[in-house]
Amino acid sequence: MDSKTVATILTDFRAGRLSLDDALEKFRDLPYEDLDYAKIDHHRMLRQGFPEVVFAQGKTTAQVAAIVERLARVNGNVIASRATPEMYETVRTLVPDAEYHELARMIVVRREEIAIDSERVILVMTAGTSDIPVAEEAALTAEIMGNKVTRVFDVGVAGIHRLLAQRHTIDQANVLIVVAGMEGALASVVGGMVAKPVIAVPTSVGYGANFGGIAALLAMLNSCAAGVAVVNIDNGFGAGRLASIINKMR
Amino acid sequence: MDSKTVATILTDFRAGRLSLDDALEKFRDLPYEDLDYAKIDHHRMLRQGFPEVVFAQGKTTAQVAAIVERLARVNGNVIASRATPEMYETVRTLVPDAEYHELARMIVVRREEIAIDSERVILVMTAGTSDIPVAEEAALTAEIMGNKVTRVFDVGVAGIHRLLAQRHTIDQANVLIVVAGMEGALASVVGGMVAKPVIAVPTSVGYGANFGGIAALLAMLNSCAAGVAVVNIDNGFGAGRLASIINKMR
Amino acid sequence: MDSKTVATILTDFRAGRLSLDDALEKFRDLPYEDLDYAKIDHHRMLRQGFPEVVFAQGKTTAQVAAIVERLARVNGNVIASRATPEMYETVRTLVPDAEYHELARMIVVRREEIAIDSERVILVMTAGTSDIPVAEEAALTAEIMGNKVTRVFDVGVAGIHRLLAQRHTIDQANVLIVVAGMEGALASVVGGMVAKPVIAVPTSVGYGANFGGIAALLAMLNSCAAGVAVVNIDNGFGAGRLASIINKMR
Amino acid sequence: MDSKTVATILTDFRAGRLSLDDALEKFRDLPYEDLDYAKIDHHRMLRQGFPEVVFAQGKTTAQVAAIVERLARVNGNVIASRATPEMYETVRTLVPDAEYHELARMIVVRREEIAIDSERVILVMTAGTSDIPVAEEAALTAEIMGNKVTRVFDVGVAGIHRLLAQRHTIDQANVLIVVAGMEGALASVVGGMVAKPVIAVPTSVGYGANFGGIAALLAMLNSCAAGVAVVNIDNGFGAGRLASIINKMR
Amino acid sequence: MDSKTVATILTDFRAGRLSLDDALEKFRDLPYEDLDYAKIDHHRMLRQGFPEVVFAQGKTTAQVAAIVERLARVNGNVIASRATPEMYETVRTLVPDAEYHELARMIVVRREEIAIDSERVILVMTAGTSDIPVAEEAALTAEIMGNKVTRVFDVGVAGIHRLLAQRHTIDQANVLIVVAGMEGALASVVGGMVAKPVIAVPTSVGYGANFGGIAALLAMLNSCAAGVAVVNIDNGFGAGRLASIINKMR
Amino acid sequence: MDSKTVATILTDFRAGRLSLDDALEKFRDLPYEDLDYAKIDHHRMLRQGFPEVVFAQGKTTAQVAAIVERLARVNGNVIASRATPEMYETVRTLVPDAEYHELARMIVVRREEIAIDSERVILVMTAGTSDIPVAEEAALTAEIMGNKVTRVFDVGVAGIHRLLAQRHTIDQANVLIVVAGMEGALASVVGGMVAKPVIAVPTSVGYGANFGGIAALLAMLNSCAAGVAVVNIDNGFGAGRLASIINKMR
Amino acid sequence: MDSKTVATILTDFRAGRLSLDDALEKFRDLPYEDLDYAKIDHHRMLRQGFPEVVFAQGKTTAQVAAIVERLARVNGNVIASRATPEMYETVRTLVPDAEYHELARMIVVRREEIAIDSERVILVMTAGTSDIPVAEEAALTAEIMGNKVTRVFDVGVAGIHRLLAQRHTIDQANVLIVVAGMEGALASVVGGMVAKPVIAVPTSVGYGANFGGIAALLAMLNSCAAGVAVVNIDNGFGAGRLASIINKMR
Amino acid sequence: MDSKTVATILTDFRAGRLSLDDALEKFRDLPYEDLDYAKIDHHRMLRQGFPEVVFAQGKTTAQVAAIVERLARVNGNVIASRATPEMYETVRTLVPDAEYHELARMIVVRREEIAIDSERVILVMTAGTSDIPVAEEAALTAEIMGNKVTRVFDVGVAGIHRLLAQRHTIDQANVLIVVAGMEGALASVVGGMVAKPVIAVPTSVGYGANFGGIAALLAMLNSCAAGVAVVNIDNGFGAGRLASIINKMR
Repeated sequence: MDSKTVATILTDFRAGRLSLDDALEKFRDLPYEDLDYAKIDHHRMLRQGFPEVVFAQGKTTAQVAAIVERLARVNGNVIASRATPEMYETVRTLVPDAEYHELARMIVVRREEIAIDSERVILVMTAGTSDIPVAEEAALTAEIMGNKVTRVFDVGVAGIHRLLAQRHTIDQANVLIVVAGMEGALASVVGGMVAKPVIAVPTSVGYGANFGGIAALLAMLNSCAAGVAVVNIDNGFGAGRLASIINKMR
Repeated sequence: MDSKTVATILTDFRAGRLSLDDALEKFRDLPYEDLDYAKIDHHRMLRQGFPEVVFAQGKTTAQVAAIVERLARVNGNVIASRATPEMYETVRTLVPDAEYHELARMIVVRREEIAIDSERVILVMTAGTSDIPVAEEAALTAEIMGNKVTRVFDVGVAGIHRLLAQRHTIDQANVLIVVAGMEGALASVVGGMVAKPVIAVPTSVGYGANFGGIAALLAMLNSCAAGVAVVNIDNGFGAGRLASIINKMR
Repeated sequence: MDSKTVATILTDFRAGRLSLDDALEKFRDLPYEDLDYAKIDHHRMLRQGFPEVVFAQGKTTAQVAAIVERLARVNGNVIASRATPEMYETVRTLVPDAEYHELARMIVVRREEIAIDSERVILVMTAGTSDIPVAEEAALTAEIMGNKVTRVFDVGVAGIHRLLAQRHTIDQANVLIVVAGMEGALASVVGGMVAKPVIAVPTSVGYGANFGGIAALLAMLNSCAAGVAVVNIDNGFGAGRLASIINKMR
Repeated sequence: MDSKTVATILTDFRAGRLSLDDALEKFRDLPYEDLDYAKIDHHRMLRQGFPEVVFAQGKTTAQVAAIVERLARVNGNVIASRATPEMYETVRTLVPDAEYHELARMIVVRREEIAIDSERVILVMTAGTSDIPVAEEAALTAEIMGNKVTRVFDVGVAGIHRLLAQRHTIDQANVLIVVAGMEGALASVVGGMVAKPVIAVPTSVGYGANFGGIAALLAMLNSCAAGVAVVNIDNGFGAGRLASIINKMR
Repeated sequence: MDSKTVATILTDFRAGRLSLDDALEKFRDLPYEDLDYAKIDHHRMLRQGFPEVVFAQGKTTAQVAAIVERLARVNGNVIASRATPEMYETVRTLVPDAEYHELARMIVVRREEIAIDSERVILVMTAGTSDIPVAEEAALTAEIMGNKVTRVFDVGVAGIHRLLAQRHTIDQANVLIVVAGMEGALASVVGGMVAKPVIAVPTSVGYGANFGGIAALLAMLNSCAAGVAVVNIDNGFGAGRLASIINKMR
Repeated sequence: MDSKTVATILTDFRAGRLSLDDALEKFRDLPYEDLDYAKIDHHRMLRQGFPEVVFAQGKTTAQVAAIVERLARVNGNVIASRATPEMYETVRTLVPDAEYHELARMIVVRREEIAIDSERVILVMTAGTSDIPVAEEAALTAEIMGNKVTRVFDVGVAGIHRLLAQRHTIDQANVLIVVAGMEGALASVVGGMVAKPVIAVPTSVGYGANFGGIAALLAMLNSCAAGVAVVNIDNGFGAGRLASIINKMR
Repeated sequence: MDSKTVATILTDFRAGRLSLDDALEKFRDLPYEDLDYAKIDHHRMLRQGFPEVVFAQGKTTAQVAAIVERLARVNGNVIASRATPEMYETVRTLVPDAEYHELARMIVVRREEIAIDSERVILVMTAGTSDIPVAEEAALTAEIMGNKVTRVFDVGVAGIHRLLAQRHTIDQANVLIVVAGMEGALASVVGGMVAKPVIAVPTSVGYGANFGGIAALLAMLNSCAAGVAVVNIDNGFGAGRLASIINKMR
Repeated sequence: MDSKTVATILTDFRAGRLSLDDALEKFRDLPYEDLDYAKIDHHRMLRQGFPEVVFAQGKTTAQVAAIVERLARVNGNVIASRATPEMYETVRTLVPDAEYHELARMIVVRREEIAIDSERVILVMTAGTSDIPVAEEAALTAEIMGNKVTRVFDVGVAGIHRLLAQRHTIDQANVLIVVAGMEGALASVVGGMVAKPVIAVPTSVGYGANFGGIAALLAMLNSCAAGVAVVNIDNGFGAGRLASIINKMR
């Protein structure tokens, strides 16, 4: 299936000219676009409500640019995570309206604003200042996918009063993302305070026996608070995506 | 605060004779019951909607029995996970209506049926037959907390057609719990098929380089499917609890 | 140096008939008693203020009994840690006034009460009920060495209000021992609340990715609270000994 | 044995002027060429049907160039894996017909085309785009050793329909090489689809808890699909070599 | 699809009354038999030429017996690996012609002799005597699947002359399985001697820094001999299965 | 609470115009200053007697400079650890009296000299010359917090006479910090010589199987000398802070 | 080569009726005795001066007994290490003059006394009492191989005066074996005191973060004392064998 | 003790003007030279027959240069290992006759030729070409300490005939150093061929699952050949030093 056909079907689907069933039918045989070095999963938008996200790390700049360009052609919004400024420079030549969020290391194409339910807030918290880049990756991901996000940074447990001062904000959140390196204890404390889902993101922040994030990862997995689940070390994107899925359930 | 006072307040609260605000007010100073070796967190029911769960492993039989008895006195439903048959025998002398689920290793007191929304199904899947005990811990936990649960066991990825045959069941689920040992690949495949939250539970099932569940744990943490989060190895209870929290969101 | 000579010198020293300098002089050449399989360090009492402690695990019952008997002959107080009930039965035939503390797995000979400064309290805390055996090893060690000890058990961070309710007790402590398994977060929270030394003891309590205590150990080593130091997994004795040393400084 | 003698014997053998038995006889005493820092195993061609392959990483540029030059003098085809562009520049001054494959990081001298049985295809698959360099090392190795190779890239299990769309290609393969980083699940799924040997190559692609390829390595070792064997992390060459050996069996 | 239907189709297929295409067609919808706790993959015989193998470890005795009974009903040959004598006693009541191989810990039902090509030998070697149980699991697996197997045990590299004395046997082998614990060096030496596939099986034999087989596993993965691939620690079955697949290629 | 208010309260408190109780009262609601990316814990000075210390690693230069500037505005003394020379250059533009200690990688603002009890000495020892940077971080920290510090470097146990020659200095110390990489044995030997608290700091100094400090860390945790506790690898600051707390106890 | 022939040749060799060259010649083709499950390396006595040693762990009782019987038939002295009392009972029925050393877990047949040079002493030291079994395995091995051995036990570094009191014995030793668990520091201290070879044996003695001997192993590998080499955890035999080889050099 | 005094005593000792006993007497109080950041152990020459060796890695260039200069002033021969070319440039300004061995990364001052017994050869072997730098560190160390050294490089076990061709050289060696990365199997094979001490040096050469030398380290520790002991990863110096000690025993 060549790119043009793929584009036509998807565009028609987004425009409502094709029903989901009809779109799926058309894609029965080959529901992705084949660039040889990448199979672009346009089908994902039908299946999961948001197009494939480009994990840029490990890809060449040319590959990232080409994939973003293809996705942008047929989807409203595109994300490339772990992208370097160099990658962005190349992407911009192909997709002029792409933006770069340096802190979160993300390239974003945002053409279609997704309706946001401002009653349902995703709260992104960090234990320290150094955890902010990962937290921003999570927050930005959730925002682009159509969620209201509140940020509370640097409330690690060694100054428990700083955390308790956020009690009200915590209680208001619908889904919580807790980002912490070092000993990762914040997830357990927050997990015990709420009856909402807590997504814990260990970070590689720290030194010595933190072993690149293992200390925080293990702490979060062993959390004595129920209601906490964990994603990969530094995986802000995954946390943001999952939080968005949960936040939109009804 | 002595046990009787605690009991009265909580009983009144459950019966609707006390509002949540009033109950919380009464508990301001010491919102738990102190047995010296354990601080029973009756407050949790107010805070998180379900009473504290007893993690029996590592406690003495006498401790487990006493804690279950106290919780049962003031709450409708009680769970003790990782409990041995011996523990159950002692618990039963104090709480005659306690049941034991051998496969899930759980003691359950179920006095109050929680209303279930049968439109929202939690699907519990296992990769193999040996993963079933952990899966049952998850499923039973979710059921007691008032959720409809469907079980699909032994659909590991090495026979992908067995998994694909469950396509319809998978599509209908509101939250998915994927339980797998060995290489833990099931979480990634399922995670890619749905736009719902997937809670992955690595198990210690396997041998050799599975290292007691590390192989499955790492696989699940590194899942290339977004929307997957992970709990501790063999932590069926945690998965069931989190799935229940998510399933009840609206 | 034969056992009798050693005994005479030490007895004279304890009785004040020999000064420290004179005792040390006598011990210049061979300041211990040689049983072939063990070199009993009677010198330690001169050097460190408390006689050598017997680490019973890995020794034969006969060895433990013989060493306790020799130490008891020349010292007021003797401790054997990680001792089994079987070891105690044999020790008792040689040292009738020996006691056994089952929870702490310690054999204790206590003939001389050490003066206690009741203004200076060592606080021993645990995160959970299952951590109590290790905590008791620490508490008992500190008590025998002449310290006032307060115990606060089961105040893990997932129920932060249970911990905060102990605020006053925590503020009064002179030295704190924090015993926790699973994710070990209690040390960080307590460490941030006080300006006193916190000795963190990771325990092997937990399962799965706690890896026999590694999770708690790493969490405590990476604590973002300054003022926290860590001893070996399950090393209640070491924590109690260090707390006693610190508590007696002036 | 000096280089010239070695060369003469090998050249005669390749030309059919010497039988295998006679060649082996001549090499009885010293069947390799000694450069002090390297013992070039010309014997390997007799023993294993393909000359020694140079693993360039860790060798100096001068060493790599000298070894390639010696091998090229007496063998038809030479491979140097993990070679840098700088190494190639030096090799080229000595062996002008050497080529460099940047993606696969290989220097290749190809003077003799080995007959290919186009009915027997080695299929090289990757889970992601970032795994391609390792896959190319495998594919190129197999091609130079005289095999027909098909490439299918970026068919990771999180988009299982992309993989299933390759069903026909997979069924046609005689030997399969599965290259995957992150959670390495592709090997298990493919292993369950075929009754042909599957060689799994974990890659270091990923981040955080992939631990430089350990996650994928463990997943592949624990694959619940029989018929899967694993080589070292990023070892494309080893996979290509083994696939070639198997593909030529009859 | 109920069990009887499954049985009829498979029996017809084995008897030649149904073509492969027709059998596959019949199985399109639900190609396995569902016991709730297990999905028996009868389809595997069509897909991979040998029925599903039961991994008994972690299953209950009742589960193992039921699965073996179902498989035996529709297939000629059945294997259950990692089976205890107790499991066998129960299986025997349902399947009287089942045999138990104690050394290899396998239950075998062998009703149909598969034709063996005695020119193609699978050689199973061990480094030590303690590695024999794993080797027997591999050898027995390969034999039941219709291969000629030669065993050479206790030829570890510390007595290299014992290995070299097997030179002729090694040269004659078509596929080699090398089973070794401790330092696992045998795989590298054998791998360098032949141009045939070598399947390396690390075992947990050893002590101390062998870490339950990790030492041998790493050694085999890092083998400097090309043509070696590795299966899980103690995975004799996997090695035997893969060797059989390779040995039957033409 | 804006920065100016915070500053006023703290300045009044340090000047004695406000009692501790009154200051705490004023801070009841929001006892820190919020910079969004950091919550500056001015409260810590009240709670722990020394202001928050800036862990510079992982923060941007702008963040470090801003935080130091705020802390310096309301506190007498400020420390930023793990700071680069570049960070210092920026800090100096905001806080001209800041100093940089290159060896210890610390930025220090020292406006208020804390009274030192010269009878109580903290002894900082290293096993080797390469451990000195970590030791200096510890020593400098303790000095700024008002302690007398003695340094004894390069007295590793492989030249035990060098250590024994320091006997007198060791006996005089009130608290000991032992900094060692490689095999970390110094902590055990020193721990056995004294009846004072020993804080062991493993360093990442070494190579090969030291694994970035794990060897020394494990050695120190397993020390057979009681009275030893351990901080994170390379954590000179933590050791200095804890030593200061202990040294000031009476 | 049948057992009788092997026996005749070896007996003649030991009796001096055959020269080494002649014996080696006779063994050219098959220099070991083949029991199928074991290849008994009689050749080792010619090659290494002492017959093969039986590592009993992991072998069946019947295998151990048969191998000891064969070795005893043609050699003067036989050792089986890691042997259980049960194994010994069976061996004794075949080899009545076999002895069992329970502490060292060794079966010994000693028919030929090897001349001992009493000027050259192997010193076996332990850090603690619990290390003695491993030390005895080393000491007994060295004694049987014809060395004078001195034992000094329980001189761990936490009581450095106990070690220094052994200064004279240490100085007199020709080869030193240092056996230590926990933090393994003894090897470094002893290594720095002598100019003789030190063989370090880590033991699994300890708990918690000793990880079954890893702490001591790493400490010994990272020893800052030159002249120290390390064998496997608990490998008393290997240390004794190597010490004997070195002690007999001239 | 100031530097001049130290120098005079040592110079007199080396010149024979002072007996060993007299020299030791003079050094009773302070047997080393104190540079603050380093305690130069001149005593080591008396104690161990060779002056302290400078481990340059981790020291500043100025420190290395100063220490070498001091050692060179009073000793004949000096070694600094792991030294960079930059360090050498600075050393040379202070010690003009210092040489630099780039491959071995060593600075050497060689003023006094130590008598060599050419009958006793230390054989240094490597498995591969990339292991040569570590091997050269070992060889050079042994040579400077007065030993005859033979080098045999690139004889890894995957080409076992290359190793066997060295049989004569191996048999002639008095002590063997085996340097190998990757799977480290060479030590086991060589260890089984000789009755001489084998010092195994694992190297960090390799990639992927070699984990920086762990694979080779574990293989060598688990060697089934007795007579093998292991030093730290890449520790050529330690191996050379120990080999020299053993080689000079009589």
